[in-house]
Amino acid sequence: MKTLADAFEHTLQDVYFAEHSITKALPKVIKAVSNTELKAALQDHLAETKGQIKILDRVFSAMGLEAQGEKCDAIEGLIKECDGVAAEATGKVAKNAALIGCCQAIEHYEISRYGTLREWAKALGNIEAHDLLSEILDQEKAANYKLTHLAVTEINKA
Amino acid sequence: MKTLADAFEHTLQDVYFAEHSITKALPKVIKAVSNTELKAALQDHLAETKGQIKILDRVFSAMGLEAQGEKCDAIEGLIKECDGVAAEATGKVAKNAALIGCCQAIEHYEISRYGTLREWAKALGNIEAHDLLSEILDQEKAANYKLTHLAVTEINKA
Repeated sequence: MKTLADAFEHTLQDVYFAEHSITKALPKVIKAVSNTELKAALQDHLAETKGQIKILDRVFSAMGLEAQGEKCDAIEGLIKECDGVAAEATGKVAKNAALIGCCQAIEHYEISRYGTLREWAKALGNIEAHDLLSEILDQEKAANYKLTHLAVTEINKA
Repeated sequence: MKTLADAFEHTLQDVYFAEHSITKALPKVIKAVSNTELKAALQDHLAETKGQIKILDRVFSAMGLEAQGEKCDAIEGLIKECDGVAAEATGKVAKNAALIGCCQAIEHYEISRYGTLREWAKALGNIEAHDLLSEILDQEKAANYKLTHLAVTEINKA
């Protein structure tokens, strides 16, 4: 990894791996939570994540790269934390609250990475990639906002 | 973990472990980057992190809990990613850009956790803990903003 283009490719492969990992992890979280609005929000985000993988395919293509993932230690740690919480939380209240927190940690990880990637795409002069990454970034921010709203107005009050 | 108070205690121990881990990881990042402004910003944040551990001691105390950390898989994954990038990046440009990105991912993790914790403190009726956690949250947001500004105005342009 010598250039900004190398760093971009490496990180793009990281988030590609991360999104695929999330599509495998989210169904377990959806099953574990009991609040119906939270279930629905996570179900929506699972569908959105699958769409984001398709947008990432277009980012790879815009950059002249082959779409492929690379093992991402960060998302593995974040998902491991989520699995641990799902196993340890026995009460409904604690499970809903703790799992929404873990999902928001994952959202924030993505917000951070897409924020970095879209700025790198701009610095590398690829406006198509910049715009596609901005589209995903906006979705992640909206998903996180929805979870915050749900946590504050409903989950924490329970 | 049955109640919101249990989830709070568990997550507080997680961030306590995370902040201690960051004080060990940051010096390696500071050594690895070459941009002087980035080095200075990370040095400042290292000092700030040590102060945050003292604020967390006060949060434990405000909640009537003993200050202790608990192994946090998420921060371990985020730091592992950071270490991997430091080892793989050989060019100065890629190293500065990729490491500032990893540091921002860590900042975002903290922003997420402190955002959750302070809302839980409020829901649990502990305003002192809420205010202390808000103080750390504001510091993390400011640190992340500073890194974003540095990345966009300087690092990416190099």
